[in-house]
Amino acid sequence: MNYDQIFDKAITRLHEEGRYRVFVDILRNKGKFPNARCFAGHNGPRPITVWCSNDYLSMGQHPKVIAAMETALHDVGAGSGGTRNIGGNTHLHVELENELADLHGKDGALLFTSGYVSNEASLSTLAKILPGCIIYSDELNHASMIAGIRNSGCEKHVFKHNDMEHLEQLLAASDPNVPKLIAFESVYSMDGDIAPIAEICDLADKYNALTYCDEVHAVGMYGPRGGGITERDGTASRVTIIEGTLGKAFGVMGGYITADRKIIDVIRSYAPGFIFTTSLSPVLVAGVLAAVKHLKSSNEERDSQQRHAAYLKKSFADAGLPVMHSVTHIVPLMIGDPVKAKRISDILLAEYGVYVQPINYPTVPRGTERLRFTPGPSHDEAMMDQLTKALLEIWNREELALIKAA
Amino acid sequence: MNYDQIFDKAITRLHEEGRYRVFVDILRNKGKFPNARCFAGHNGPRPITVWCSNDYLSMGQHPKVIAAMETALHDVGAGSGGTRNIGGNTHLHVELENELADLHGKDGALLFTSGYVSNEASLSTLAKILPGCIIYSDELNHASMIAGIRNSGCEKHVFKHNDMEHLEQLLAASDPNVPKLIAFESVYSMDGDIAPIAEICDLADKYNALTYCDEVHAVGMYGPRGGGITERDGTASRVTIIEGTLGKAFGVMGGYITADRKIIDVIRSYAPGFIFTTSLSPVLVAGVLAAVKHLKSSNEERDSQQRHAAYLKKSFADAGLPVMHSVTHIVPLMIGDPVKAKRISDILLAEYGVYVQPINYPTVPRGTERLRFTPGPSHDEAMMDQLTKALLEIWNREELALIKAA
Ligand SMILES: Cc1ncc(COP(=O)(O)O)c(C=O)c1O
Ligand SMILES: Cc1ncc(COP(=O)(O)O)c(C=O)c1O
Repeated sequence: MNYDQIFDKAITRLHEEGRYRVFVDILRNKGKFPNARCFAGHNGPRPITVWCSNDYLSMGQHPKVIAAMETALHDVGAGSGGTRNIGGNTHLHVELENELADLHGKDGALLFTSGYVSNEASLSTLAKILPGCIIYSDELNHASMIAGIRNSGCEKHVFKHNDMEHLEQLLAASDPNVPKLIAFESVYSMDGDIAPIAEICDLADKYNALTYCDEVHAVGMYGPRGGGITERDGTASRVTIIEGTLGKAFGVMGGYITADRKIIDVIRSYAPGFIFTTSLSPVLVAGVLAAVKHLKSSNEERDSQQRHAAYLKKSFADAGLPVMHSVTHIVPLMIGDPVKAKRISDILLAEYGVYVQPINYPTVPRGTERLRFTPGPSHDEAMMDQLTKALLEIWNREELALIKAA
Repeated sequence: MNYDQIFDKAITRLHEEGRYRVFVDILRNKGKFPNARCFAGHNGPRPITVWCSNDYLSMGQHPKVIAAMETALHDVGAGSGGTRNIGGNTHLHVELENELADLHGKDGALLFTSGYVSNEASLSTLAKILPGCIIYSDELNHASMIAGIRNSGCEKHVFKHNDMEHLEQLLAASDPNVPKLIAFESVYSMDGDIAPIAEICDLADKYNALTYCDEVHAVGMYGPRGGGITERDGTASRVTIIEGTLGKAFGVMGGYITADRKIIDVIRSYAPGFIFTTSLSPVLVAGVLAAVKHLKSSNEERDSQQRHAAYLKKSFADAGLPVMHSVTHIVPLMIGDPVKAKRISDILLAEYGVYVQPINYPTVPRGTERLRFTPGPSHDEAMMDQLTKALLEIWNREELALIKAA
């Protein structure tokens, strides 16, 4: 039994596949985001521009969010000091849950320490509570949903991405008398496409299935109040459980689900990942409260995010860069090779002060490695023009293929 | 298929067993902890004293922690904006990992969003990486360790609590050529007892097993620098992986492991619960950094916590209250019935402004329901005298048994 050898082999495998990860060491400059400082491999921090943040609307530096957090810090202190049941249920948590339930038009909500935990805990608990439950899962679902489904130990059928025919085949082939749950995302964050939510709900009605929608990459950003794609398209009331994160468009950290009060009560009462952990710091909760409230009434951030994303997509396409088709705020450039993706990213950081992380397996399927840009309200047109110019220079120097305009 | 019925049944079961949980809605008063405000069932907030917080050393209101968080909030903003690999690896995270590795005398550390996630992700990933791994798990291990072990799908043997003979039997009966991991806690937080860590390490040496020690209820509080029981007893270098939380004695939120760099690299590279989630808010990280540094050099908080715990134990015992034997800062009163435990807790809150949560199944075994007090540096002797007096009044009124001094 040589433990070291086993660990070495696990790491060597990553190096061989060109997907060993080196984290880029940065600090954002509050108030000047996407500007940041980079500490990696330099003498002292060096200025960079962040192009791969999921603080999609720059709410992480919004004055209302910062002020709310500062107030909470001085009013109640740094942490909650306990689990939700034992000393860690602050009034701020209760208020935020009410705010989130209202955001999605549901009568209950439940906070978790992260979006990951909300998916893992909710899906694994639901599938355990429902005897014999079968879960139908989109093949591109996020790792946290896959973990929850796996950990429930239930029967699972994976349907082809957004493929309603395949989903219906699977539903039709199952025993009509067992509980069923269809799990999917609204915005798929690596491709930027959107699920056919109304059709999924039609199938759920037809086959008496519950529906679980991860709106992590949509909450705050779509719908007139930031309620996500289900708000924009009027499908929220048809989806049984809507899940979201507090760490992306809301700019802070944490996760949640919203649903009927009864379902919330079941998950609250049975999910180990909810019960046995220190609750979210009230400082974070206060910041999120401010962010959610602000985005319920302000469309400015959403509008300028969409405008900038459209501008960047067009700029990439006009230059012949291999921008992927995306109907959302996500702007991915297909590279198709982990080593090349890392090389381009390294050059961008070292020579241009542009930080965009290469996206490799297992985050995306092998052979579809990419650079994923997330322009937001704070990335202006001059920055985007510069970015396209930098990429074109690298493309030419590295002799990468450009796409001729049709 | 009637989903509602299934959910109703799940909730009814809890009511029937007297363990349906109602969260007590509070806000702490920073700078005046354990004083807090209670919102439940009253017109406006009412002052209470918190006796069940796991902010064990009141670091959640320490001026250095608050100042560090305020600085980070204004310097870098509310959230990290990404996973550790994609935009969310801030310089503060790197610094805190170094600080924690140093605290335990290890050469690497890894941050997670919570102690729960650190246990779940580390144990499930380790056991998957080591082919055929068997895990030996103390029967009182925390739900998060149990989840990690379960989710790994590996073979698991549960040994009787702190029972070295039983553990050795199990080890001796296993194939000597398969990887083995012994998982245990240092301080068991519901009873207040401590694992025989040196003996566990002896057995690990003899049977070539790795060791995994959850020091969640000990870090910050034991050892001359707050390195936990393994620091106090000089066993840290013998334990393969030491796990801790940032949400209890360090007063904020988050979790971590420390170990050899190689093991850290494996978990960093393979654990979905680490990889696929927004990293800890830099504001939290900054607060923890300040707390860890402070507790490395100050013994004042630890000393007064121990002094107050000893005082409260003696005060309870002298009064004939059924205080359980505890060799740590935890002061549990055995009740042995979920309905009685809740009733006493309700009276304490409503009539005396004393908040102590009843601890029921599944947190403790059925029939061992208890009240669990956690006196800290900020609970003074007058408060403790009042508490004992209140309990005695309730004991007499409710005709509960007192224990005659021997
Ligand atoms: C689709 C999806 N769901 C859930 C999560 C997890 O959310 P969080 O970062 O809050 O853990 C992520 C990414 O982090 C995600 O992309
Ligand atoms: C022994 C033990 N390990 C781990 C945890 C989880 O730590 P955290 O609260 O940081 O998730 C807890 C309690 O919360 C615990 O009691």
